[in-house]
Amino acid sequence: MNSITTLFNIKYPIIQGGMIWCSGWKLASGVSNAGGLGLIGTGSMYPEVAEEHIKKCKAATDKPFGVNIPLLYPQTDEIVSIVIKEGVKIVFTSAGNPAKYTSLLKENGITVVHVVANKKFALKAVDAGVDAIVAEGFEAGGHNGLEETTTMVLIPMIRKVTNIPLIAAGGIGSGQAIFAAIALGADGVQIGSRFAASAESSAHQNFQNAIVQADDGDTLLTLKQVIPVRLIKNEFLQQVQQLEKSGATKEDLIKLLGRGRAKKGMFEGNTAEGELEIGQVSSMIDTIEPVDKIMNILISEFNEASDHLNGLKL
Amino acid sequence: MNSITTLFNIKYPIIQGGMIWCSGWKLASGVSNAGGLGLIGTGSMYPEVAEEHIKKCKAATDKPFGVNIPLLYPQTDEIVSIVIKEGVKIVFTSAGNPAKYTSLLKENGITVVHVVANKKFALKAVDAGVDAIVAEGFEAGGHNGLEETTTMVLIPMIRKVTNIPLIAAGGIGSGQAIFAAIALGADGVQIGSRFAASAESSAHQNFQNAIVQADDGDTLLTLKQVIPVRLIKNEFLQQVQQLEKSGATKEDLIKLLGRGRAKKGMFEGNTAEGELEIGQVSSMIDTIEPVDKIMNILISEFNEASDHLNGLKL
Repeated sequence: MNSITTLFNIKYPIIQGGMIWCSGWKLASGVSNAGGLGLIGTGSMYPEVAEEHIKKCKAATDKPFGVNIPLLYPQTDEIVSIVIKEGVKIVFTSAGNPAKYTSLLKENGITVVHVVANKKFALKAVDAGVDAIVAEGFEAGGHNGLEETTTMVLIPMIRKVTNIPLIAAGGIGSGQAIFAAIALGADGVQIGSRFAASAESSAHQNFQNAIVQADDGDTLLTLKQVIPVRLIKNEFLQQVQQLEKSGATKEDLIKLLGRGRAKKGMFEGNTAEGELEIGQVSSMIDTIEPVDKIMNILISEFNEASDHLNGLKL
Repeated sequence: MNSITTLFNIKYPIIQGGMIWCSGWKLASGVSNAGGLGLIGTGSMYPEVAEEHIKKCKAATDKPFGVNIPLLYPQTDEIVSIVIKEGVKIVFTSAGNPAKYTSLLKENGITVVHVVANKKFALKAVDAGVDAIVAEGFEAGGHNGLEETTTMVLIPMIRKVTNIPLIAAGGIGSGQAIFAAIALGADGVQIGSRFAASAESSAHQNFQNAIVQADDGDTLLTLKQVIPVRLIKNEFLQQVQQLEKSGATKEDLIKLLGRGRAKKGMFEGNTAEGELEIGQVSSMIDTIEPVDKIMNILISEFNEASDHLNGLKL
């Protein structure tokens, strides 16, 4: 038991990251049923779809689960209303100003966590009154910070300036990495890629195959002029790089990006032309497993690491 | 005692990275006298200067020390000859093909370590017969890999494919981070930035002040078209970025870089126009301390982390 398991009333301080096109009710309830905290990722959902996933998740687990709400979409107000109406108890907000919804959510009895990628926003989130922070390093998949600060540096840096419950994200796909994150000052971890590559993920089979095939150096933090995002290198990413090399403006890149690139890649399985959001740790993901098996592996690895380092002194 | 302390016959598995314009005989002998392994960084030295530093280091310590030789300079053959002639027992090679000098060095009874930033070169180094590997993550200062793989991902990835003694580098400036690196699968660590900011470092006072002032997001891996290098953001770096945004070629960038940029910044103290090579962990370096104090702090922090996580199970 620590500050994270207590805060969420869960068995293990392992949170499944809310991921667009991957984490619907099946994945979230699966992780929660296995003793972690599952999150429904609403970033890729219309409000009525989000509502359906929340209802189905409630039916599929009696354990705590949460909802991730990226604050960069126009329908955020509506999603927040649904979350309150449906009695969701835990909300992770990301990609926006933590001051905007934290009070409203907390007035409705919701535990609020905000995802940050730098020290400045960590302190902003603390000021906004959140209950915990996810600090996500450069190696993480999907949207990320321009500071490019890695998990190894980000976690101790934030731990140094605040005592708030701290969840490390980015580069964590094994129990050894969970143990390392806690040594760095985190109280728990958020894992994305490993669960994107699970049987309960909504990711398209082609995208999951691309995750399994991804090796060292096969992802890149790109589109920094628009909004930095880590993707698997594919034809679309080559087009982005060519455009950037020719001195492209932000507008040129937004035009190339167009609409629905992430859906095309991650949900529809067009691995050449779509955006494939995944973390560097995909280089170590070799199989698609059910969530309960992944959780068992993580816990065994953590306990082995603990035994291995037990009593180690310099 | 572990594979790293045994290999080098040192007390603590802490290696001071060989850094241009920072790590002469004073720093190297200081770290070795404090129970770590000090390295003379010959990347910024003419052969006769390197010889002088080796002689002075031998006079200043009876503990093991080593020499770092980046394999990208024309005088490499000469430096290798001096190292052999002077009876140096430990050589770290970097920035080049590990197959080129490993046999010659080992035939002369030298323990050889090669620095890598990706899995491919780690396996190449093993094939070349090195005694250990330094795996350096994206967050490290100075030259780095195009894969941008962070320490959190790089260490377990390399540990998975080889049992060779493994030294983690990049983002490590505290005892907690050393403990985390060992949890990830490393046997020891190489620390650069923290020692660049020591009293025994040859870094110019202005450069050291810039390290102390550097905060989150103040460094960047840049010049990727030429050779990726992590620098503190300054006027020179702004010029590089402007040139890159305008669609610059590799040749344009080499021309801007010119000669002696690193010396100008790190040794002569021109923090506006020079290259200032330092890691992301500079964001957590607040003081310039003597090496023996830094070593004591690292060891205390490591032991505290060990106590804190002792017997922790999920």
